Amino acid sequence: MEAAWAELPYSQGSLLGSVNPDLASERQTASFSVEKLTAWLDGGTEHTRLRRAVGTYLQGLETTAVFDITTQEFVLNTPNISAMKWWPGDMGRSATHTVVFAQLYVNGKCYGLHPFIVQIRSLQDHSLCPGITAGDIGPKMNFEHIDNGYLMLQNVRVPRENMLSKFCEVQPDGTYVRRGSQKINYFTMTTVRISLILDEVVIPLMKACTIAIRYSVVRRQSKLKPGEQEAKILDYQTQQEKLLPQLAAAYAFYFISDYLQELFDRGYREIQRKNFDMLPELHAFSSGFKAMVTQYSTSAVEICLRACGGHGYSLLSGLPSLYTKIVASCIYEGENTILFLQTARFLIKCFMAASTGQPVPPSVTYLAAVTPEKCPAKNKLDFLSPDIYTEAYQHMAARLINSTAAKLQDLVQSGVKKHDAWNQCTVQLAQAAKAHCHYITVKNFAETVEKLETQPGIQKIMKHLCDLFALHGIFSNAGVFLHDGYISGAQMDMVTASYLDLLAVIRKDAVPLVDAFDFTDKTLNSALGSYDGQVYQRLYEWAQKSPTNKQISPAYERYLKPLLHKTLSKL
Amino acid sequence: MEAAWAELPYSQGSLLGSVNPDLASERQTASFSVEKLTAWLDGGTEHTRLRRAVGTYLQGLETTAVFDITTQEFVLNTPNISAMKWWPGDMGRSATHTVVFAQLYVNGKCYGLHPFIVQIRSLQDHSLCPGITAGDIGPKMNFEHIDNGYLMLQNVRVPRENMLSKFCEVQPDGTYVRRGSQKINYFTMTTVRISLILDEVVIPLMKACTIAIRYSVVRRQSKLKPGEQEAKILDYQTQQEKLLPQLAAAYAFYFISDYLQELFDRGYREIQRKNFDMLPELHAFSSGFKAMVTQYSTSAVEICLRACGGHGYSLLSGLPSLYTKIVASCIYEGENTILFLQTARFLIKCFMAASTGQPVPPSVTYLAAVTPEKCPAKNKLDFLSPDIYTEAYQHMAARLINSTAAKLQDLVQSGVKKHDAWNQCTVQLAQAAKAHCHYITVKNFAETVEKLETQPGIQKIMKHLCDLFALHGIFSNAGVFLHDGYISGAQMDMVTASYLDLLAVIRKDAVPLVDAFDFTDKTLNSALGSYDGQVYQRLYEWAQKSPTNKQISPAYERYLKPLLHKTLSKL
Repeated sequence: MEAAWAELPYSQGSLLGSVNPDLASERQTASFSVEKLTAWLDGGTEHTRLRRAVGTYLQGLETTAVFDITTQEFVLNTPNISAMKWWPGDMGRSATHTVVFAQLYVNGKCYGLHPFIVQIRSLQDHSLCPGITAGDIGPKMNFEHIDNGYLMLQNVRVPRENMLSKFCEVQPDGTYVRRGSQKINYFTMTTVRISLILDEVVIPLMKACTIAIRYSVVRRQSKLKPGEQEAKILDYQTQQEKLLPQLAAAYAFYFISDYLQELFDRGYREIQRKNFDMLPELHAFSSGFKAMVTQYSTSAVEICLRACGGHGYSLLSGLPSLYTKIVASCIYEGENTILFLQTARFLIKCFMAASTGQPVPPSVTYLAAVTPEKCPAKNKLDFLSPDIYTEAYQHMAARLINSTAAKLQDLVQSGVKKHDAWNQCTVQLAQAAKAHCHYITVKNFAETVEKLETQPGIQKIMKHLCDLFALHGIFSNAGVFLHDGYISGAQMDMVTASYLDLLAVIRKDAVPLVDAFDFTDKTLNSALGSYDGQVYQRLYEWAQKSPTNKQISPAYERYLKPLLHKTLSKL
Repeated sequence: MEAAWAELPYSQGSLLGSVNPDLASERQTASFSVEKLTAWLDGGTEHTRLRRAVGTYLQGLETTAVFDITTQEFVLNTPNISAMKWWPGDMGRSATHTVVFAQLYVNGKCYGLHPFIVQIRSLQDHSLCPGITAGDIGPKMNFEHIDNGYLMLQNVRVPRENMLSKFCEVQPDGTYVRRGSQKINYFTMTTVRISLILDEVVIPLMKACTIAIRYSVVRRQSKLKPGEQEAKILDYQTQQEKLLPQLAAAYAFYFISDYLQELFDRGYREIQRKNFDMLPELHAFSSGFKAMVTQYSTSAVEICLRACGGHGYSLLSGLPSLYTKIVASCIYEGENTILFLQTARFLIKCFMAASTGQPVPPSVTYLAAVTPEKCPAKNKLDFLSPDIYTEAYQHMAARLINSTAAKLQDLVQSGVKKHDAWNQCTVQLAQAAKAHCHYITVKNFAETVEKLETQPGIQKIMKHLCDLFALHGIFSNAGVFLHDGYISGAQMDMVTASYLDLLAVIRKDAVPLVDAFDFTDKTLNSALGSYDGQVYQRLYEWAQKSPTNKQISPAYERYLKPLLHKTLSKL
């Protein structure tokens, strides 16, 4: 499939006949000569490529469902290819029915988006139904087994009953009736975002850690001490610093996923009692944590892949497919930046409320708490105290939210319009939201460790991991802790010292800590990461199974043989 | 190919009969009960998987070439599968000859690694030669078109003349003769590392920027101002903050590649005059910059991919293949961490020399320079002065090298062995090397802009990009600038303000700045990034070419039809 695609004549290089006007307008206002810059970059080459700058105007439009009272049907239309739906799974080749969201119109009045069941393929021969344009969107970075599709509708008619009508209905005479709360709509997104954290993100991260850590005690390279045999690469500080923080993060996110699930269950019980008060908090938390965990874990899996060197890049390591799968989670179910900004909006609101003494959800009361202005740590061991580092995170998150709220207010007071002011603060708002989620994750990890008092062996190693996760975060984001002097330069040196010390401590338990995830070799599907560590035998065995190793390459007969036997035409 | 592989029964889950002893030993010293931890993580599940912990001892051994004086041949052997060579391109199915590096033995004495020409396939029928085990290593994250191979040799004999003997030779009577300097060996690596920066890294980064920036002015989403049409996503501050620093980096790296090429040319001229003095500097620079540029650019391309949302994840965007190609550059031609540490070793040496008044290469004289203790900037506009920010980078790089050298000395003086002390400093050494390369890149960008005085239009926009590159670096690595108070918290706020202001300024010229790279649509091979911006038409056109859109899915007849027509067995 991949190969067949690679041969397609995609790259025809021709313009489609017109330039998108949004793009054309960007070129009319350049403050410099593009040709001169290009010539300068190239050291003076001439350029002759045809450039045309006229165009049709494309505008984003949306699918409509117009109620036809005479036939008791809805008529669905996608007005334009830029309004075409892309990406639904299983729609490209397989599905016979879909649920389509469309703008509902009754008697010329628009009632907003509603869901409609639409048949798209014949149940007899699987051909597309009249008015339906649908197909596979082509190759992606992963998910080759799923036929993500595109869909366009032209005068497609469905009976009135095909509108999903639990919360609102169009009656036969065209009367529109709404029941229940509209707020409940975004509870589905909340559910999905919380549930994907464990299955689609934390589990792949745990797998990547397992593979990379097991491989790093089998792979030996260079000598750490003169005269000794080559060292296991996990004995190098730099390799520990790559992998062990990711292992700590896997545990941290496993626990935060529990925390969110519990929050969600509590919210769900309230909703069943018709109390919707927790919805904003649930929405804000599910958004921010989805964004934070997917972003952090994507980068963590990439670190694991690269930490295995060339073999990490082989598909036989299992790591490339974990990466291409997890990077998708940053995009689907809400793009991460947008999600962070939704969390930020909630935090700013809570901060405003808290600072005027109004009640806020327990998870954000810290925004109004008074904390010391300086971190009280006196030596590097003090930074192994969860109170010390949790308070540092709390201070930092509160400061970022506080200072961004202040910037927002200043802008508005200086006459900038509210939406402009918001846009001018979004980089910092996203940073503040991430800081909040980071703080809650550290705090929750520390609380989880505290509850382990009946299992001292496990508690001890979990405490080390919690410390590592927290100190790695301070070490890697030193700026936000140093900014107002809460942590001083000298204290940052203590953080660094404790952080690096912890690596050597956790190093000893690294393999058992991934063994505890208890993945079977079949699940890992990795030549580098299997339980027995027989990396080289397995790589060799699996490589031999390559279809191209079963025969002489077909390219030999066609290209190489004539070349080697000099029977090629001399042309 | 990809698909055929996916069906292979890789995952048989069985242990190969023994556990690698390196891995087994890791499990004997766990400080806690793995079973208890697993049970706790799972909430108490029982585990029954067989675990065996006995094993054979695998050791890294290397290929040898033993001179047989009676036949005037070298006899080559790969002693073990862990000594097998993996990854050479074109070796899996195509090559007939290879150059093999092996430990040369003459009369029982080892002379170290030497290169030998070895025929591996028949010129008649392309079958493997006697004693040769070779094949394709299987699927990778990219480079499907290259048959990277594995190779093992058993008693393979080659004539004496097959040893490459420019610098050393084995004479017929077994006398070993060396000519010229051994140092020259690492000049090849230097050459390759410098040349790959432009072709394999900067060009892909420029392509990714072109695609993402063009798409971001065509794609509209949500409203920035009430009542207006949906906004171009590049008008959002967060999207600018994702893409514009990557654009600035593409220019910065384009210029540093020029700088390195010039340094290299100078070094090469010296070497031709038998002066090898510049080799350590060239080696250190090519290592550090290869590592810095590949690492930065890999993350930059990933940002571009994610900034295009779902469509960035489609192979039709051209971005996934740019990513999977560029991530390989972090691994090949020297793993990045090891390269940074080589640069660090050079810097520490130079620092020691400079601080005792010995001469050092001009590029590192700054290590001994006296700089002010505080950044003199008074307002946000001061941070648009190249002198101000270049000096900040210089101060920061010198401080990191200085403080790591001090830690190293302290450890050694306190009795830690030299190699242990080095290992305990490697995280900070790598950070210091990166800081040095970052400083040189900023300095070189500023100098490039200065030389543009005859082209004021281009100079102005290049100045903006240089400022953005520098301030983005300070904003994103705030900790190292704040650490010793060189930049204060209040000054960091000025940096942030200037940095965010610049985004809006460069935003206006973003499209012309990528147009200037002058890629043809054919080269970009992207439905999102073509010159005319007809994104949606092109996506639709290309998707329709999917082979699976040409026919009813074969899976329909086999699986769906029996299901839909209820002719499936009820079993």
